[in-house]
Parts: sequence; C-alpha cells; structure tokens
Amino acid sequence: MLIETVNSPADIKASDINQLTALAAEIRSGLMNRLSRRGGHFGPNFGIVEATIALHYVFDSPRDKFVFDVSHQCYTHKILTGRKAAFFDAAHFGDVSGYTNPEESEHDFFNVGHTSTSVSLACGLAKSRDLKGESGNVIAVIGDGSLSGGEALEGLDFAAELGSNFIIVVNDNDMSIAENHGGLYQNLKALRDTNGTAQCNLFRALGLDYRYVADGNDLAALIEAFSAVKDTDHPTVVHIRTKKGKGYLPAETDKESWHWHMPFDPETGKTLYTGGGENYGDLTCEYLMKKMKADRRVVTMVAAVPTNIGFTEEKRREAGAQFIDAGIAEEHAVAMASGIAKSGGKPVFATHSSFFQRTYDQLSQDLCINRSPATLLVNTASVYGMHDITHLGIFDIPMMSNIPNLVYLAPTNCEEYFAMLEWSIEQDRYPVAVRIPCNGVHHTDKPADTDYSALNRYQITQHGAKTAILALGDFYQLGEALAKLIAEKTGTAPTLINPRYITGLDEALLCQLKADHDTVITLEDGILDGGFGEKIARFYGTSDIKVFCYGLKKEFIDRYALEDVLKANHLTPEQICNDIYKGE
Amino acid sequence: MLIETVNSPADIKASDINQLTALAAEIRSGLMNRLSRRGGHFGPNFGIVEATIALHYVFDSPRDKFVFDVSHQCYTHKILTGRKAAFFDAAHFGDVSGYTNPEESEHDFFNVGHTSTSVSLACGLAKSRDLKGESGNVIAVIGDGSLSGGEALEGLDFAAELGSNFIIVVNDNDMSIAENHGGLYQNLKALRDTNGTAQCNLFRALGLDYRYVADGNDLAALIEAFSAVKDTDHPTVVHIRTKKGKGYLPAETDKESWHWHMPFDPETGKTLYTGGGENYGDLTCEYLMKKMKADRRVVTMVAAVPTNIGFTEEKRREAGAQFIDAGIAEEHAVAMASGIAKSGGKPVFATHSSFFQRTYDQLSQDLCINRSPATLLVNTASVYGMHDITHLGIFDIPMMSNIPNLVYLAPTNCEEYFAMLEWSIEQDRYPVAVRIPCNGVHHTDKPADTDYSALNRYQITQHGAKTAILALGDFYQLGEALAKLIAEKTGTAPTLINPRYITGLDEALLCQLKADHDTVITLEDGILDGGFGEKIARFYGTSDIKVFCYGLKKEFIDRYALEDVLKANHLTPEQICNDIYKGE
Repeated sequence: MLIETVNSPADIKASDINQLTALAAEIRSGLMNRLSRRGGHFGPNFGIVEATIALHYVFDSPRDKFVFDVSHQCYTHKILTGRKAAFFDAAHFGDVSGYTNPEESEHDFFNVGHTSTSVSLACGLAKSRDLKGESGNVIAVIGDGSLSGGEALEGLDFAAELGSNFIIVVNDNDMSIAENHGGLYQNLKALRDTNGTAQCNLFRALGLDYRYVADGNDLAALIEAFSAVKDTDHPTVVHIRTKKGKGYLPAETDKESWHWHMPFDPETGKTLYTGGGENYGDLTCEYLMKKMKADRRVVTMVAAVPTNIGFTEEKRREAGAQFIDAGIAEEHAVAMASGIAKSGGKPVFATHSSFFQRTYDQLSQDLCINRSPATLLVNTASVYGMHDITHLGIFDIPMMSNIPNLVYLAPTNCEEYFAMLEWSIEQDRYPVAVRIPCNGVHHTDKPADTDYSALNRYQITQHGAKTAILALGDFYQLGEALAKLIAEKTGTAPTLINPRYITGLDEALLCQLKADHDTVITLEDGILDGGFGEKIARFYGTSDIKVFCYGLKKEFIDRYALEDVLKANHLTPEQICNDIYKGE
Repeated sequence: MLIETVNSPADIKASDINQLTALAAEIRSGLMNRLSRRGGHFGPNFGIVEATIALHYVFDSPRDKFVFDVSHQCYTHKILTGRKAAFFDAAHFGDVSGYTNPEESEHDFFNVGHTSTSVSLACGLAKSRDLKGESGNVIAVIGDGSLSGGEALEGLDFAAELGSNFIIVVNDNDMSIAENHGGLYQNLKALRDTNGTAQCNLFRALGLDYRYVADGNDLAALIEAFSAVKDTDHPTVVHIRTKKGKGYLPAETDKESWHWHMPFDPETGKTLYTGGGENYGDLTCEYLMKKMKADRRVVTMVAAVPTNIGFTEEKRREAGAQFIDAGIAEEHAVAMASGIAKSGGKPVFATHSSFFQRTYDQLSQDLCINRSPATLLVNTASVYGMHDITHLGIFDIPMMSNIPNLVYLAPTNCEEYFAMLEWSIEQDRYPVAVRIPCNGVHHTDKPADTDYSALNRYQITQHGAKTAILALGDFYQLGEALAKLIAEKTGTAPTLINPRYITGLDEALLCQLKADHDTVITLEDGILDGGFGEKIARFYGTSDIKVFCYGLKKEFIDRYALEDVLKANHLTPEQICNDIYKGE
C-alpha cells in the first residue's frame, strides 16, 4: 500500500501520476472504511479525492494555506496530513472531527462547519500575509452549493480587492445537499457546457480571473491547472467539475441520499440501522402537505436542507409551487417569508437552530419590525440535537427571544407542537417561531389549546405548593421527573408549569405564585445566559422568592456525550433536588 | 406650481414630458426645502427624482408594488403619494420618517432602513401574488452600493427562480456612502462603458434578464425602459445610470459629504451648525492612525461607513493598505477580521451596533469558535445613538454578549476606552468587542487600567454600604448621579461599581457584596431582556439580595425623544430612588 508511506504532504511530492492514481484508490478504501462504519459526509469526500491529492502535490501546506468551505469534504486532506489512522483504523475513528480543526493539525487553520465562510476567512489569511510582507499561496476550496450563501458572495465580491495571491477552487459537482437553487447555477451550467469559455461568467463579473478544468477527477488535469495558478499575483478562480460520490455507484446514482450517510453495508449500500418509529421530520411534512393542499396560500420554505422536515424529492415535486428551496440563502429566505406573509401568503420556513444564526438581522429588520405573520420552525434546537461545535442548537433562545415582536413558542409534546403550528399559520398578527421538539415524540391524551393569541399565558399542569417548576419545551419531561422526585423527597408536591411562551412573562401567574411558593425552578434546553430563566430571575429579583435557573453553561462544546453534558450542568432530577434541598 | 395638483400617482398620468420635467424641478425645490432645514439623505434623493417620477408614471402603485432598498431615497416617492406637505411645509416635516413606512401610506409595504433587503422582500410580494393567482408588477429599487450586501446577492441569485413578473431597478450612481469596494463594481463600470452591452454581465450571470438606461436622469428614456418591462413575465433588471446629488452642484461635486447632510445654507452649501468639541470618531481615527504607523500588522476595517470613526478620504489614503473598506459586507468583514487575527495580523473592525446585527453567525462561527483575537468597535450602541426604528443601538448586548468566548467591554470614559482598545489590539487570546461610549466624551484624572486579561474583574469606584450600583458603560454617569442622590436621601453612601465586562460575572466581588449590602441596582444602556442585569439577577436569585434591573424595555421605538424614553423606562436618578426607597 502506498498510503503506508504517506505521513505528510511531503511524502507524495515525488510520486508519478500512476502512483497518485493508485493512492486515490487507497484513500477511497480508507474513506469507505470509516464512512461505512461510522457514517458521515460521503458524496463530498468521494468526489474530491483527486483534487485534494493534486492540491497537496502542487502546493506546500502549511506554508501554502488551504481553507475548506464547510470542511465536510476535508477527509482526504486529513489522510494526507498525518491523520490517516482515523480512516484506516477503527480504533482511531474518534481521533478526528468531521471538519477541519486546528487542534488536530498545523494544516488546519479554522474550526469550520457552517457553509459559505471559506473565501472570507481565506481573504483574512491573505491580507495578514501581505501586511506582514510574507509570501505563500492562500487557497479557498468551496463547493457550488455554498456559493449561494451571502457570506460567500460577499467574499467573492471582495476578493478582487486583495490585488495579490489568492486562489479560489470552485468544486462544482452540480449539487448542493439536494439539487441547487438560484440563477447562478444556470451560469455554472453554461460554463460547464462551454468548457469554461462562456463570455458571461459570474466569477469574471466579480472581478476575478478564471480557469476551468473539465474533469475535476483527472489528476493530471488538476495538477496542470493548480501548477499554472501557483504563485499567481492576483485573485483567481479554478473551476473544477467533479462527480459527487465518485467511485461508489450508489452514491454516484442517488447523490442526495449519499450527501451524508448513516453507517451502511459497502456491498449493498444498505443502511445498517434503520431508525424506527415516529419522527418530527415526517410528521411535519405530512401536516404541511395536507395544509398546503387545503390552502394554496400556504408555502413551505427551506434553505437547502429539505429532508430535515421530511421533504424528500417526491414530496417536493408533489408540493410544486408551494414548496421553495431557497438554496443556502437563509437571509433571503427569512426576508422573502416576511414579504410573502406581509401580502397575505402563509409561509412556513424551517431550518436548524444553528443556521437561523445567519438571519439575526433579517429576523429583526425584515420580519419583526414589520410584524409579518410568518412562521419559523426551529429544528434541532436542543442539547439533544447536533453535537458538533459548529452545529450546536443551544443558542437560539438568547439570539431570537430578545428580538421585539417575535412570539417564540416551546411545545412540550407532539399534540401541542401541531396545535401551535396550526395557530401560527392561521393567525395574521405576529411573526411566530416554534421550537420543534427534539427529545423524542411525546404524546398526550390532554387536548392542546388551539388559540395562542393571548400572549404569554403559561399553563399550570400540576397545582402544588412551596416550589414551582417552570419547565420549558424539551425540558418539560425533565420537569415532570423533577416534580415527582421533589414530592417524594419533601412530602409536598410542587407546582409544575408549562411556560409555552419563550418571549414573554406571564406576570399575573408569576405574581400569584408568591402567595404559596418560596422557590421557583426554571428549566430550559439551551444556554442560561440571555435565556428564559434569567427573565424569571429578574422578575423575582425584588421579591423574597428564590429562583434557581437550570440550563446549559455558555460555552462551545464539541462532539459531546449527552449524559456528560447534562451531568456537568446539573440537569438530572437528582442533582437539582440535591442542589436545592441539600440543607433540608 | 404643478405639484399643487399632485396628490397621488394618478395625478401625473396625463402629464406630458415637459410637465414631468417641470415637476422634477419643483420636487427638487421641495427636497431642498426639507433637507436644508432638517438634514437627511441628500445625494440619493436628488439623484433619483426622475426615476421615481417615471416609475409612478409607468406603473400603477399600489397595485404595482415598489420596494425601495434602504429606502433613504424614497422622498420623491413620498411626495408623489400624498405626503408632499412633509417636504414643502416645515410645519409638516415631522409627519413622515426618512424611510418607507406602511403606517404613512398604502404605497409603502415595509419599514425599511437597513441595506440590501429590497430584492428578497419584493420576491416575497411576487411569490405571494403568484400563490394567490393575482397580477400586477413587483419592482425592487436598489442602489449600486447595496448590491455588495449578502442578503442582496442572495436575493438577486434567487430571483431567477421566481419565473414570473419581477423587476429590479438598479440605481447606479457609482457611489456607495463613500466610494464602492468590491469586484462587482468593475463589472458595473464595464456595463456603463459599453452602454450595457458587455457580454460579461453580473445580472445575466445570476440568471436575470437585463436592460440598460445610459442616462437615468432622462425622463423620456426611463419611461421608455420601464414601459418596455412593465408586465414582463420573468425577472428583469433595469440598470439605470444616475447622478448622485443631481441638480445641486456641491452635492454633485462632493458626493461622499452629501450622501447624508446636516441642515445647511442652500446658497452656499455651508452646514448651519458645526459640531464643536471632541468626538469619538476623530479621537478613534487619530489613535488608530498612530497605532498603524507604529505597527504595520494593525489594520482598520469598516463596512461602507468610514467617516463614523473619522476616516475621511484623506485619512483613508494616508492609511493605505492598512485600511480596508469592505463595502456593505459586514459578514465578510467579520470573517476576514478573524482570518487576519488568526494569522498574526491585528484587525480593528468598526461599525454601528445595528449593523453588527448582520454578523451574528460570523461572530459565533468564524470569530468566537476560533478564538481569533480581533477587535470589534461597536458604534452608536446606546439609547443616546440613532433614533430611527431601523437603526436602534439597544440590542447589541443580548445579541453579542451571549456568544461564548467573546469578551465584550463597556468603557465608562475616554481614557478607559482607549486603554481597553490598546489592550485588545495587543493581546492575542480573545476576540474582543468594545462599546464606543455614546453619551459624550467624559474624561477622568484617574489612570485607567492597562491590562484586562484577567477577565470579569469589576471595579469598585466608591465603597459604600447597603446598596450597590452596577453601572455599565454609558450609564456609569447615571450611576454616579444615582449614588449621590441615594446618599442624600438615605444618609448612607452606596457602593458604586464599574463592571467593565459585559460578558461575565465577577463572582468573587458579587459574593463579597452580600456581607454588607441588601440591594443591588444594575444600570445598562440597552434592553433588559437577555442583557447584563438579568445575569446579576440570576446570580443573586438564590440569595437574599434584592436586585433591581434598569435598562430599556424590549421594543422597537421610532424617532423617539430621548427624555421621553428615559422617563418611560424610569431611567432618571429620581425615579430609581423613588422606586426603591418609596417605602422608606
């Protein structure tokens, strides 16, 4: 095996094209070894093997600096930069993250996981090099799907201003996570169809030099192109056409399903573990499909992650003009939702908690100042959600709930979630966000309220005394367990409350609690700083009520074990009881 | 006067070109009347008079819908849609805002004030029209400067997907607020130089149809172009070349100074009131110029508002490669600052509190996850700052301070501000943001600390008893006045504390206060929700200390009178004293 001799990029410099070709095949076997057993981004990594080898063959990392966009395609880069064990040896799978990570290697410059950031980050490296009078190449590697993001477009527009060495490799596999959306993809097609010679050229229109590689899986062609731009004195795009999932037929055939994939049998491509039972993705899709059929003003919107709310290709086709995939363009999506809602449409825009972070100003300016009655569905907004440092769902409460005019709702079970969603779509007074539950599909026999228009009315679900528990959203079930334990330990059943509204206080109810309670416990599935509990603490700050706030510490956690994080934050019923009643 | 007969767009439909030309002159006299006496956006409004007349002549507002980007150029639109008194009659100046406003007129669809939003908002109106099976034109009007913003670029990219009537008027006056920055402006120049015929065309590259008007101040040419695209069945750009400040020589000559202008003498163009004394813009520029000369790794960055930190054209030229105007591209600016800082440069990026809202995800992902030691200067972050609903500076504390790893500092006077800025530039461990004071330039004789690397150490500036006042940043002077009043009223001098750090608690000091204090008052210049005081309330929630939090209510306020807002929020020393000691 050639790979045995490769421990750093220097080890491939003397290889000839046949050896590099053989190396590519070996790398794919390493990728297959990890991906089939652990899961991960399949298509992006299989598609960029040759390009990554060629980059490391031509350039001199880390003196020459690569910045991978999203960096979900960086596996070959990791293999070539001293981290091959994490792909070839199951015992070392845990050694690396799925993204670039400066803590792992001097060849990685940033922790990256969000899309569309590479060009701007790399511009910074180039500018710093120039300020210090240093030399070396700076290379951003960005996929076609990521180009539609505002930050990427701003970066591409600015890059021309650098006026010095800067290389942008556009890895065009004609796919985003699902199919691409946006006018620029017509231009990429025109460039592909003309072997890069079309006069109308997005990159040239942004002031950048340009070169095209028709087969981005051809090592010789890639090496020639990268060699030609190495040490260039001005910003240049190298547009390479690659095949997503290259080298594995199921992934080449069904690109969307194989963008990210669960562990599977390499022989058959069949997923090893099939998730059973209900999930909010499918349930949400089913609800929205029905709703859209009944009312043509309802429109479902996503930003490049359609299947996360169940919209498979088939469902998207069925929904037709009532389904919008804005591509990776969340800012546009929120503003467009505001426009639709303002003029009588009923938009429902869903994406991940972590991706709503790209829309703060649109939430504030386009949506909330205008009080446009759009519905936002906030997905994986929870400590139970995604565990990578770049995809945490624990910051949306401080980010969103402090924006005026927004009504942010936290359902505690399936029936309440759909009741809130139904109310939100039908009302025309408020911008409303709903946190999709993330701790499993809990059902209830009790009918959920259907009208949420009298804002900030909390719901007492168990009347008790002395202690009141405000258990928000996903932590309601924790609140139930805690209530039971407190009753057992103290002999007095506490009051249990479902606050429902993240964005406001039920001052009447909170005042009323003062009569026969001395302790209030808040539970929220997110960081405490800027969150829900602190508002309760402020409310009671001038009274004798003691307030204990439970939630997560303000910190970026990475690839965490759920149980560890819950324990570290005292988020088990036993720990909370001990904290509060230790002296009793 | 023709204008006397114009009360709605219908009143200009029968006019011939001579009458419309005369009307344009009359409108400019109305603009001059308001702008010379009240101030406002001069250049954008003088430049777009003819285009606005032509739009209202050709299209049928409000059935056809205009969305103006930023909407600072909407004065002629207001004059033609029933609001002319606000321009011709000083008694009615206060009737209208400086931006579009649905509360004023059915011809306005959104409250807008931030840049780069028009295309996406208008896409929403078009989509809603299509969903409902209605007809009518939707027209976004966007300036060349706004094109570089991520939201605008996302919207332009998406627009091609609409596949129905949609018109984007690109008002190209070859200027942003200052000069434009970004590669796309080379393409706009190429289009202007070739009368719109250049094959490489940014708009066509984004999938849009395109047409060019060489003289965008020529009514006949505009009417012809708009008539040609009226009722088009697909998205189309009409690129018009206008002259910023057209019709007033000083504004045509010095476009940057006349983008927004204070009241002035129309005869001479001289500003009526010249602000005397020190200001943080000039002081900051002076400091940074010196710093950059001493260290070539230091680089000052802005996003299209250079003069707000004193960087006039002359200073920008002097700073050379150490000054970056990213154009309207804050997302890119923050990410690029992270890249610069990560590789040994020392970037200082300054913009307004309200414009930092466009960078939440870049602050979180690009900057703070990577702990890049960049410096951010947050300008007009205060109730004393800008008073328009779209430019409020009272939300940055909840937005920014709850992001992990960021150190957000609130200086209380001039010396402390520059000490913090100096420390931030020289340290290499933290991303640091500094709130530029906004309540006047206060000086102190006491030397400011020079080292802020031991985080979250609050400073006791007056030792007292019973009551402790935590007076953050701009509200420190309020704290001083309050401390004096409390001492007078109660006979006991309170403790006064300068917290300095917005992003963390000095737990040792807060614990220590418990010994001889029973009341803590927090003062912060921003909304209370998600802010600083609530963290103090949470800290003391389980103790006997009473916490009173003072700051602003979570709401969007518009064109407010400062005194009214302060009173409504009980932000005078007398009100606070009354609240707390009423029973004593």
